Amino acid sequence: MRAFIVLGHKVPLTPNFSLNDLPGSAGRLDILCRCVTAAFCLSHGIRRDVTVYLVLQNQIVLRFEGTRLKHLNPDERSTAALIQKALKAFTERAGAEIESTPGIFVAAGGLSEALKRVTDEGLTVYWLHERGSPIRKVQLSADAAFVLSDHLEFLPEEEAILEKLPRLSLGPLSLHADHCIVLAHNELDLRGGVAPAPQGV
Amino acid sequence: MRAFIVLGHKVPLTPNFSLNDLPGSAGRLDILCRCVTAAFCLSHGIRRDVTVYLVLQNQIVLRFEGTRLKHLNPDERSTAALIQKALKAFTERAGAEIESTPGIFVAAGGLSEALKRVTDEGLTVYWLHERGSPIRKVQLSADAAFVLSDHLEFLPEEEAILEKLPRLSLGPLSLHADHCIVLAHNELDLRGGVAPAPQGV
Repeated sequence: MRAFIVLGHKVPLTPNFSLNDLPGSAGRLDILCRCVTAAFCLSHGIRRDVTVYLVLQNQIVLRFEGTRLKHLNPDERSTAALIQKALKAFTERAGAEIESTPGIFVAAGGLSEALKRVTDEGLTVYWLHERGSPIRKVQLSADAAFVLSDHLEFLPEEEAILEKLPRLSLGPLSLHADHCIVLAHNELDLRGGVAPAPQGV
Repeated sequence: MRAFIVLGHKVPLTPNFSLNDLPGSAGRLDILCRCVTAAFCLSHGIRRDVTVYLVLQNQIVLRFEGTRLKHLNPDERSTAALIQKALKAFTERAGAEIESTPGIFVAAGGLSEALKRVTDEGLTVYWLHERGSPIRKVQLSADAAFVLSDHLEFLPEEEAILEKLPRLSLGPLSLHADHCIVLAHNELDLRGGVAPAPQGV
């Protein structure tokens, strides 16, 4: 099992944004969409052993479960439409967790809730951090969760939650979150134990 | 210097497509847009030492030059708009090469022309291929060009052109082209000699 927790600091909490303006009115939702694609999409299939948590403004958690996920395509716009649908379902039925489309769950919550969930599932949590240990040189759990931020730095209150986690760095440059996901996956793929479903969407 | 040559087999040769439907009427242009982003975009800047060649149906070559590139944002839609603008300029003035926006050049041509250009510039060309040598285990030129395909396999006539190139593989799974670019960059980054401009767009 692998998981990615991505913090979206500016993504709206309601579905009132335009799919034509993901970087603007949707608060850089384009980044989060590419993270979902990087986490799940293989050339011809879906990684079923992955869960993605998009944490929106530390108030809403969108959880994508690879085992159940349907209707996911690699492009930003269609992923954003799924997220918009999830936010619409959430605003209409705030409170209980809702599965807005197969494999996408939305509920109130934040970074702490997402961390608790992956920890309860037995995953080792790593903080992807520019000043971390080089990922190629450390022992890695095959059941790993990685925490990343969107285009903004981690907030002090987020750093306070994360500070005790092991930090991993991926290279000498500061990269986009989705590119970090690609690299983390590849590192684990190369170490073996990969079992993606052949075809899925 | 690094270069990426990406073959787009279905992308239209005219600007007559909708930015709202990149995977459909634009022939999976979403993939090529993500390739451009993966090739150039760092978290806070542009890799200036990169050139990208998008080869459309082996008839048009769009060349993105990092040294001159402006107006590039990481999202698919805005990159597609730049490509649409280039195709518009090309249809209006077919023949001579045109710089449609700063750093984006469009001209008639195909895979052979793109390969000739990177070879003339002294780059070593590698074919990213699932049955290649593992990239981590081979000596790599710091001045490297990589050839990739979109969502479709290489055509027999493309394979005939490429067959003498060294083949490199990135991992055990078949990945999206843009994810391959992320991995190739990272491999070279880790080997040193990187000099991105700090801020650029």
